[in-house]
Amino acid sequence: MPDLSDVTRGRILYGGDYNPEQWPEETWHEDVRLMKDAGVNSVTVGVFSWARLEPRPGERDFGWLDRLMDLLHEAGVGVVLATPTASPPPWLGRLHPETLPRDEDGRTEWWGGRQHFSHSSAAYRRHAAAITEALAARYAGHPALTMWHINNEYCTYDHGDEAAARFRAWLRDRYGTLEALNTAWGTAFWSQGYGDWAEILPPRRTHYLKNPAQVLDFRRFTSDMLLECYAAERDIVRRHTPHLPVTTNFMPLWFGQDGWRWAEEEDVVSVDLYPDPRDPLGAQEGALVQDLTRSQARGPWMLMEQATGAVGWRDVDQPKPRGLNRLWSLQAVARGADAVCYFQWRQSRQGAEKFHSAMVGHAGPRGRAFQEVKRLGADLARIAPHVSGTRIAADVAVLHDWHAWWAATQEARPFSRADPPVVLRAWHRALWEAHLTTDFAHPEHDLSRYRMVVAPQLYLLTDAAVDNLLSYVRGGGTLVCGFLTGIADRDDRVRPGGMDARLRELFGIRVLHEWWPLPAGETVGCDGFRGTLWSEELEADGTADETVPYRGGELDGLPAVLGKGRAWYVSTLPEPEALRGLLADIAAGAGVRPVLDRIPAGVEAVRRGDLLFLLNHGRAPVTVEVPGGHRDLLTGETVTDRAELGRYGVRVLAS
Amino acid sequence: MPDLSDVTRGRILYGGDYNPEQWPEETWHEDVRLMKDAGVNSVTVGVFSWARLEPRPGERDFGWLDRLMDLLHEAGVGVVLATPTASPPPWLGRLHPETLPRDEDGRTEWWGGRQHFSHSSAAYRRHAAAITEALAARYAGHPALTMWHINNEYCTYDHGDEAAARFRAWLRDRYGTLEALNTAWGTAFWSQGYGDWAEILPPRRTHYLKNPAQVLDFRRFTSDMLLECYAAERDIVRRHTPHLPVTTNFMPLWFGQDGWRWAEEEDVVSVDLYPDPRDPLGAQEGALVQDLTRSQARGPWMLMEQATGAVGWRDVDQPKPRGLNRLWSLQAVARGADAVCYFQWRQSRQGAEKFHSAMVGHAGPRGRAFQEVKRLGADLARIAPHVSGTRIAADVAVLHDWHAWWAATQEARPFSRADPPVVLRAWHRALWEAHLTTDFAHPEHDLSRYRMVVAPQLYLLTDAAVDNLLSYVRGGGTLVCGFLTGIADRDDRVRPGGMDARLRELFGIRVLHEWWPLPAGETVGCDGFRGTLWSEELEADGTADETVPYRGGELDGLPAVLGKGRAWYVSTLPEPEALRGLLADIAAGAGVRPVLDRIPAGVEAVRRGDLLFLLNHGRAPVTVEVPGGHRDLLTGETVTDRAELGRYGVRVLAS
Amino acid sequence: MPDLSDVTRGRILYGGDYNPEQWPEETWHEDVRLMKDAGVNSVTVGVFSWARLEPRPGERDFGWLDRLMDLLHEAGVGVVLATPTASPPPWLGRLHPETLPRDEDGRTEWWGGRQHFSHSSAAYRRHAAAITEALAARYAGHPALTMWHINNEYCTYDHGDEAAARFRAWLRDRYGTLEALNTAWGTAFWSQGYGDWAEILPPRRTHYLKNPAQVLDFRRFTSDMLLECYAAERDIVRRHTPHLPVTTNFMPLWFGQDGWRWAEEEDVVSVDLYPDPRDPLGAQEGALVQDLTRSQARGPWMLMEQATGAVGWRDVDQPKPRGLNRLWSLQAVARGADAVCYFQWRQSRQGAEKFHSAMVGHAGPRGRAFQEVKRLGADLARIAPHVSGTRIAADVAVLHDWHAWWAATQEARPFSRADPPVVLRAWHRALWEAHLTTDFAHPEHDLSRYRMVVAPQLYLLTDAAVDNLLSYVRGGGTLVCGFLTGIADRDDRVRPGGMDARLRELFGIRVLHEWWPLPAGETVGCDGFRGTLWSEELEADGTADETVPYRGGELDGLPAVLGKGRAWYVSTLPEPEALRGLLADIAAGAGVRPVLDRIPAGVEAVRRGDLLFLLNHGRAPVTVEVPGGHRDLLTGETVTDRAELGRYGVRVLAS
Repeated sequence: MPDLSDVTRGRILYGGDYNPEQWPEETWHEDVRLMKDAGVNSVTVGVFSWARLEPRPGERDFGWLDRLMDLLHEAGVGVVLATPTASPPPWLGRLHPETLPRDEDGRTEWWGGRQHFSHSSAAYRRHAAAITEALAARYAGHPALTMWHINNEYCTYDHGDEAAARFRAWLRDRYGTLEALNTAWGTAFWSQGYGDWAEILPPRRTHYLKNPAQVLDFRRFTSDMLLECYAAERDIVRRHTPHLPVTTNFMPLWFGQDGWRWAEEEDVVSVDLYPDPRDPLGAQEGALVQDLTRSQARGPWMLMEQATGAVGWRDVDQPKPRGLNRLWSLQAVARGADAVCYFQWRQSRQGAEKFHSAMVGHAGPRGRAFQEVKRLGADLARIAPHVSGTRIAADVAVLHDWHAWWAATQEARPFSRADPPVVLRAWHRALWEAHLTTDFAHPEHDLSRYRMVVAPQLYLLTDAAVDNLLSYVRGGGTLVCGFLTGIADRDDRVRPGGMDARLRELFGIRVLHEWWPLPAGETVGCDGFRGTLWSEELEADGTADETVPYRGGELDGLPAVLGKGRAWYVSTLPEPEALRGLLADIAAGAGVRPVLDRIPAGVEAVRRGDLLFLLNHGRAPVTVEVPGGHRDLLTGETVTDRAELGRYGVRVLAS
Repeated sequence: MPDLSDVTRGRILYGGDYNPEQWPEETWHEDVRLMKDAGVNSVTVGVFSWARLEPRPGERDFGWLDRLMDLLHEAGVGVVLATPTASPPPWLGRLHPETLPRDEDGRTEWWGGRQHFSHSSAAYRRHAAAITEALAARYAGHPALTMWHINNEYCTYDHGDEAAARFRAWLRDRYGTLEALNTAWGTAFWSQGYGDWAEILPPRRTHYLKNPAQVLDFRRFTSDMLLECYAAERDIVRRHTPHLPVTTNFMPLWFGQDGWRWAEEEDVVSVDLYPDPRDPLGAQEGALVQDLTRSQARGPWMLMEQATGAVGWRDVDQPKPRGLNRLWSLQAVARGADAVCYFQWRQSRQGAEKFHSAMVGHAGPRGRAFQEVKRLGADLARIAPHVSGTRIAADVAVLHDWHAWWAATQEARPFSRADPPVVLRAWHRALWEAHLTTDFAHPEHDLSRYRMVVAPQLYLLTDAAVDNLLSYVRGGGTLVCGFLTGIADRDDRVRPGGMDARLRELFGIRVLHEWWPLPAGETVGCDGFRGTLWSEELEADGTADETVPYRGGELDGLPAVLGKGRAWYVSTLPEPEALRGLLADIAAGAGVRPVLDRIPAGVEAVRRGDLLFLLNHGRAPVTVEVPGGHRDLLTGETVTDRAELGRYGVRVLAS
Repeated sequence: MPDLSDVTRGRILYGGDYNPEQWPEETWHEDVRLMKDAGVNSVTVGVFSWARLEPRPGERDFGWLDRLMDLLHEAGVGVVLATPTASPPPWLGRLHPETLPRDEDGRTEWWGGRQHFSHSSAAYRRHAAAITEALAARYAGHPALTMWHINNEYCTYDHGDEAAARFRAWLRDRYGTLEALNTAWGTAFWSQGYGDWAEILPPRRTHYLKNPAQVLDFRRFTSDMLLECYAAERDIVRRHTPHLPVTTNFMPLWFGQDGWRWAEEEDVVSVDLYPDPRDPLGAQEGALVQDLTRSQARGPWMLMEQATGAVGWRDVDQPKPRGLNRLWSLQAVARGADAVCYFQWRQSRQGAEKFHSAMVGHAGPRGRAFQEVKRLGADLARIAPHVSGTRIAADVAVLHDWHAWWAATQEARPFSRADPPVVLRAWHRALWEAHLTTDFAHPEHDLSRYRMVVAPQLYLLTDAAVDNLLSYVRGGGTLVCGFLTGIADRDDRVRPGGMDARLRELFGIRVLHEWWPLPAGETVGCDGFRGTLWSEELEADGTADETVPYRGGELDGLPAVLGKGRAWYVSTLPEPEALRGLLADIAAGAGVRPVLDRIPAGVEAVRRGDLLFLLNHGRAPVTVEVPGGHRDLLTGETVTDRAELGRYGVRVLAS
């Protein structure tokens, strides 16, 4: 199968979404000049071109795209060609109103925005296949073409009648019989027993709480339907260009796609990444998404979209301060990206995203944004030969599973404040601040190559996942689990005792009496630190080797943390410093070392291949101890024992 | 007519909702063993069994219920059998979409939750009657059957076309002519005059404010339609078992039912009660609902549902701390309950309420919840012979009327912060903390047996109610009214002068110039205390005997409180201590005595029959002076002059 | 053309909306007595009388209105007769459901409130024309009739199918070709190209962001459709009574009407004004609306609606303290009103606005409200001969344009906190507190008569407007622009460079690199003051004469304020005192003088004709220096050099 290296060929891809249909052709020539000036070598074209390519049903206009592809090719800029199926032309909705999605209240999502297509609509799929086929046939042999990009940020739901029919078919596949479905959904509760497949609906508006298993399956179904749409288009382009890789862009940790399953269907894993420049933990959010994306990709990956500055939709929408765009871009490379791209090349003057920043902003080539883009292009070109294709080794894996997330976000749950991403981010932050490089993994993956595995919160665990965790520990691995792990089985059925019995036994828990969720701003005393968000009334069975007790309040003296052999259970969310200390200690016990010792606060260190990346996330200059002699690939300087980093400074050190 | 004593027969009923259809039959046997272990003597069965009992239209399956009833009977556990009509099976909605309710925006409430039935749907009523008939016919003679429970927490609205037709019929009954309706609704305002009955709709979405009288009548209509549904099923079961009492469970102070009218249609009044364990005034909320329920029942009543711990839907959903479940259960008995029951017996593993606690929680019999349930069962058995069927005497009545509440919650009112329950709870709290036992009453009830009557807020008062209050005072009663009392007549028409003229004369008010609502966090100075929530620019007529003036601000020197003979008017909401002092003083003047003198803070004292209940709502031990010798029925101890109560401790003292 | 002076004839109109259909005829006689008592000389009748006038389609009942008009005429009270078309009778919606508007989610707005008419409905327009024709024909010759009032507070949207058809027709008129529309709307973005007029819809619910140009045009269309409705009725009444002026009442700064265009279609400009009595800047809000209304009217105007106290819909809905109603009414006269009217004469006892205060409140003639109304009537009668018809001179104009506002409030904008009215109000406040009398103007108006023009924020500026501003400065005018001015062209297309190039050159801006919006509570340091709400990363071109730099943070040293000749640019919102000082300094430089020197804080001074109005907005007495001798028209007192003003006191001084 083709992969990203077939496109990079020793380079780092640099560029962004390019939407030439918004501009007169004379602007294209300025664009190409500026691209060369900035070191751009790859652009994504056609993401939203359907109405231009097919202005009326079946009537195609490729001339402008032919000219553009030729122009880019002449300039040596590769093209990632997109199927334009994320935003059908108005004529499709008018011709086939059933292609428009319905929300759970039955409200239609009309054209006039984007993504107004039902994943379940046969008419939509038919028209999407036709335009994909036409594009692939026409450009399969074009020398500019380097990769395919299918659709854009798949993320829609549909509760309409055609979706209902497909949902039923999907459920038949899953359960075989109505009896099995009734059992899995627990329809005995509230008299929901189905006597006929035709009675089953998407989870539409109800008077009171919905059946959580139905909602969970609807999320699984939605992910699968979107994936079907993706795969159908991928198969078409693959037929025409079996040598070219295919991707679609994920939204970071987006709720609606089973990211593990999707990644398997892609040749290149790519992601869109928009941390808030004002967020003091923005860099950590980036690191988390980058670690996850790299793990999905099992190697180098593509940063498909980021912003040079403002995004338009953010509540307080500030630009990136001077230097931050470069810093965060190089962070992505440090954590495995072989492509650094933006939405978009040239900032739109019209439309809903005209205030989203771009490589060439409204201020034009003189603007700070473009000046920084140029500098970054030069940086990337300088380090690319040493970086492209190299890998990152990690001793720690963080477990994440979309099904567990879906199940955990049902209505009427005592853990409404403990949303999985909140807990996931807190745990990843502790590891990141402890300079422990982490991969992500699915709870059923082979974990044997990791010294330590952490499960911040996996509310739902299949039997196979529990087996996997137990055998990982039996095999010598160190496992650290947070609260709300192993509560439910595959069907969101609470396990007897309120938590999986084998896990309870693993950690030394006799009875899980009660959950004590904590309100915002309230903490719980523990021996040596304070817990937040959650606490538990646990009864230990006396087999644990280490116990950190709660102190004060209703839980006084009960275990907050239990360590039994290599298995650890953490029943609260320790404050950041405490969680970092706890995980660093357990990691040290498992033989896991930080990337470097004595790293100043705010500095990130990552080893990629043979290189050491140092990134200063602060505005004040810092000095990092790097024993021995190194060459900084960005500056060519020699660095001995101590590396100085200025505001938002980066070093890429080769030994 | 049969009543609760026909079921209790000297016992206190103890148990809860039992939903065996969620469990394999082998679990039923464990259930029965545990029930006996815990002293459970009554369970409610079948509340959500419709789809199990009638899996397809007209196809009935009673076998499992036959076996269950037999099993419970053998174990000596009585059965409150429910009609399952609160949650129709999916097939009903599919067969008759018109049975599904519409909200005011026209959105359908689909099956997949519960209560997806339109009270106005003929098809729903027909199918509900049929399953009720079948159940009643089959189990009328079963020895386990002790009581009927109709539907569950009636609480739905419907704005659809069939509801519109019934609304018109209801209005014809009420008004006779369109002219009378136009007059009552004040349709001259905003050109809403109706020229044809067919023009009348439920209050659906409008561009701007709705007609408040239309909304008020729609609420009356909704209460009446739900009551029709109840009565239809009740009449069916009564035909089969005239010797057995019938109930349905109220939600505490739920907005949508005229509780006084409904209670008259029940043989047993029962209520669901879920105060927040974290609420410092949770015990007072319990006392209020218990006083109201007892007053509706005119004697012993049934606590149909409470939780041993978490409820699932609460924002911060903590369990009850050790001892609180027992304390609050015994409080209900102290205030007149002869039945202490829970939702539900065994915690569900699936479905929308699987995180709602139960008598047997996810932790199983070893869990703290069940251990406490066992202890409480023993306590109840011990005191039951002395308690069951006894009554509570009160010298004070608090007035409450759902129609006044409905009318007071219209849009565009200056009193949006002064919602009736807020004011009601503040006044009840003052009386509760002053240890004055209170009944509740309707403003048209005979009040002559009370020494003091308080009306915290009755925005709407009928002419008959005003007559009643005036004659109560003339007859020697002491009346204390809060602000916003007597503003509107039966049709929500503001009375001339902005407040009923006879009431103004009663209190010595010449002109009510202006209302001065207070924003959150703002208070108004009064002589000796601060007022909250509300204040008024009043001009006294000089006939009052006592006046407490406002101090400072725009109202400086104007009357805040007026006392004229036995009639008092309080134009603000005094801070808690001040309101308690004011009402205690007036009560003392009216010859009303507290239950006991010198009660420590946080302790509640109630006399039921010949017994004195002492309840410590704090976690610190306290001592209560109880002159003379007593026997504590819970422990058998002798208590002389001073009773010690531990954390959440309870004493039930017989003299 | 007739105008307001044809009605006032040397008087100030005093009165309010009068809705006699809510009262029995005997009350009318009391009304008339009280009107005479209070000096009322004008009432508005019939605003919501359609259902009374036409109880069934085509069936008319004018008898009651005949009697009322005669009665008012006998009493010497003039009648402003309203067309009742703001609230159609229920029969219209039943007969023609398509007259009911749909919101963007497709939800119907039913009758039962008011304004449930679609501006686009042919059936509505036909029925509205018919009742207007009938009214006009009947009362054209009635001696009580003085003016026509069309509809009420036009403010509705419709997204239904008939509106869609009219929208298409409106767009065809505007753009001629689909290609021009596609260009103007930038439909190349997100594949929205229209291939057929029939594909175009109102901006209904979408999955993600809407096309902002489509939304902008829909707002323009809505304003125009409502104006068509107005003009159609106006033309009918004008045909019958060419000698009588016609008006409709604006809501102050309401979003949905292009106020400049509407004002041109009115003989009398009138406004409804409801500042919150609790708002410390309520008086300034009044001044702003009054200045705008006067500018729309180009002379005396009509305060059609205000409240004596509470309004019903306000969150904290307090009455006006003693004296405030008089103060704010006289403020309106000071700023050019020749009519002071209220909603409404007599407070309703029923309906959705029964808690809206009135001239005769629920408390009746003894109530404080009516007593103050009487006093004000006497005041107005006293000053009217000196005031009526006189004008106000202003040296400063504030620019405002609804199209700029509409364009600036699109979704996904970085300036979501900088809503035009917020910025407009801050700038007007600075001028008002500096005692600089201001007119309002449209950016394309002839500005040559003003010494200084300020543009607080005009996001959208047409080419003609830019021309106009440049030629104003070239002609010697002083121009001060705030941030976000000149960003977009007529079609909401961002201008090259992110801000109009000619404006950048005017102010000395080389590059507008980035916008730095500020979150709530955050400020930016500037030399000598702090900026709020907004800041900008600007690069000056070195041509400015004056520069105030930012201090600290990312913008340290960059220009915050630029002054180049007579053109000023202010890139942040200085704190109130700083903005006041800045504008006062620039004004002084332009030769603009305040109304008076050394005015104490909280006092407003306005010159109207030859009179000097002094208004004390505080509760504490103050002294104002007024050199020379004057006569106070309110009291007849002689005032020499110093005028004393009590709580909420007013002086009207003639020299």
